[in-house]
This record gives sequence, C-alpha cells and structure tokens, in this order.
Amino acid sequence: MIGRLNHVAIVAPDLAGAARRYRDVLGAEVSAPVPLPEHGVTVVFVNLPNSKIELLTPLGAESPIAGFLARNPGGGVHHLCYEVDDLIAARDRLIASGVRVLGDGEPKTGAHGLPVLFLHPKDFNGSLIELEQARPGEVD
Amino acid sequence: MIGRLNHVAIVAPDLAGAARRYRDVLGAEVSAPVPLPEHGVTVVFVNLPNSKIELLTPLGAESPIAGFLARNPGGGVHHLCYEVDDLIAARDRLIASGVRVLGDGEPKTGAHGLPVLFLHPKDFNGSLIELEQARPGEVD
Repeated sequence: MIGRLNHVAIVAPDLAGAARRYRDVLGAEVSAPVPLPEHGVTVVFVNLPNSKIELLTPLGAESPIAGFLARNPGGGVHHLCYEVDDLIAARDRLIASGVRVLGDGEPKTGAHGLPVLFLHPKDFNGSLIELEQARPGEVD
Repeated sequence: MIGRLNHVAIVAPDLAGAARRYRDVLGAEVSAPVPLPEHGVTVVFVNLPNSKIELLTPLGAESPIAGFLARNPGGGVHHLCYEVDDLIAARDRLIASGVRVLGDGEPKTGAHGLPVLFLHPKDFNGSLIELEQARPGEVD
C-alpha cells in the first residue's frame, strides 16, 4: 500500500538558521522559504537525491505546529509522509484495522496541493504519519 | 555533501507489533527481525521504493536506545541517516563549522557494516543525524 517516503518534516524554531545549516554545513540543495499561510507554516525544502526533508516553522497565530514547538522548543521530527496510490482505499483499510485517522477522516489538501490524511502517532510507535495521494503515474 | 536519505530509524517498544502494523496495515515489505547484539538493538527493515524505515527495539542490558525508550515509552523517531561519499571529509567540515560530532569523533562500524558518525541533535533542530559512508559507486 504505502509507496515512496515523500518527505520527513522537521520543525525548526529558527528556519533561516536551520536552512543555512543544511545548505552550508551539510551541503544540501535547499529552497528559499515558502510561506504557506493556508497551512500555518513556512517551509524550506531540502532536496535529497531520493527524498526530501521539509523544514517547518509556524506561520500565523493558528499554526498547527505551534503546540509541537511549545512541547519541543528545540524542534524535532514532526512527521513522515508516505505516498499511496489510492488515499480513500488506504483510509478505509486503516480504519477497518483499528488505526485512528485524525480529524473527520476526510482528506484535506496538503502542502503539495494533493489530498492528505494524518494517522494517530500512538498507532505507529509515537511517529505521526501523513499519507499523501500520489500523483498519477508517480507511484513506484 | 549529504546524499541519499538512507533510512529513518524509529524506536518501537513492541517490535513484532510494529512490524505487523507496517506489513499488514500499511502494506509495506518488512524483513524478519534481525538481532544486532554488537549494536544493542534488534531491527526490522521496512523497504520502501526509495528509502527504508528501520524499526528498532533494545537488545541486551547496554542498549544505546534504552534511554530513548525510557524517555519515550511509546517509541518515536530516533534518527535520520544520510549517506556521504567521504565520511572523514564530512566530519572535518562539520567540526570546522562548529557542529558537535558525538563520541570521540572517530567513525564506528554501523548496522550496515559501514563507517558511521552521529551528530548532536541540538545542532539540527532536535533531530539526531547519522552520517554513513556510502558504498563506492552508490552516491548519487
């Protein structure tokens, strides 16, 4: 069911500093900061040959990562995102297996403009999982 | 400098249950448990098309992840592993940039039989980073 590891999201209290460290010290290809006000985050994409790191910092008063940063003031890994080729079928299989899908169970549009769902971290060893509908033809 | 995201390591208090959930619910290809007594862990490899998840649980009394599990009884993301084509050059560049390399700074042999180093999580937004010497010809 799950396909590629699309990205690992890391919350950074100092986004510019985190981006500089990935670029200048780890030598990675790093994007400019991209504000996503509808998602309450600003993101820097770290492009690796096989996957991505997304460095996130809160944007606006209602940021969904504000609570995480309050609990983890130094930042930390926020979630892993796996691609699936049929998000609705995946959701139904997960629910039937007793996994808790967050929210009302209806996909939202994620930061890449694709439908996403989040799974309860307590059902996956404390790690928050995002499932993203893969673009057609991109699942391998 | 950094190349592929080799793996994301997740500590699981119940390794068999975590492996079953990745296999049966997420539909991933999952290895049998591999005891690595010299590393103090038992690992299950979750093979994704572009990277790996390594589910870890402590093995033996001196496990290096026992403290993590005591602090995070439900488990959690333990580290990210990036491949580098020259681990010594990477280390020297990191130290010159003020990044703290854990231990005595000399590479150890990691779980894949390759030299590895770990970087202080406080220098990377609370995320522990492992650098692994890539196998020759495998860096892209």
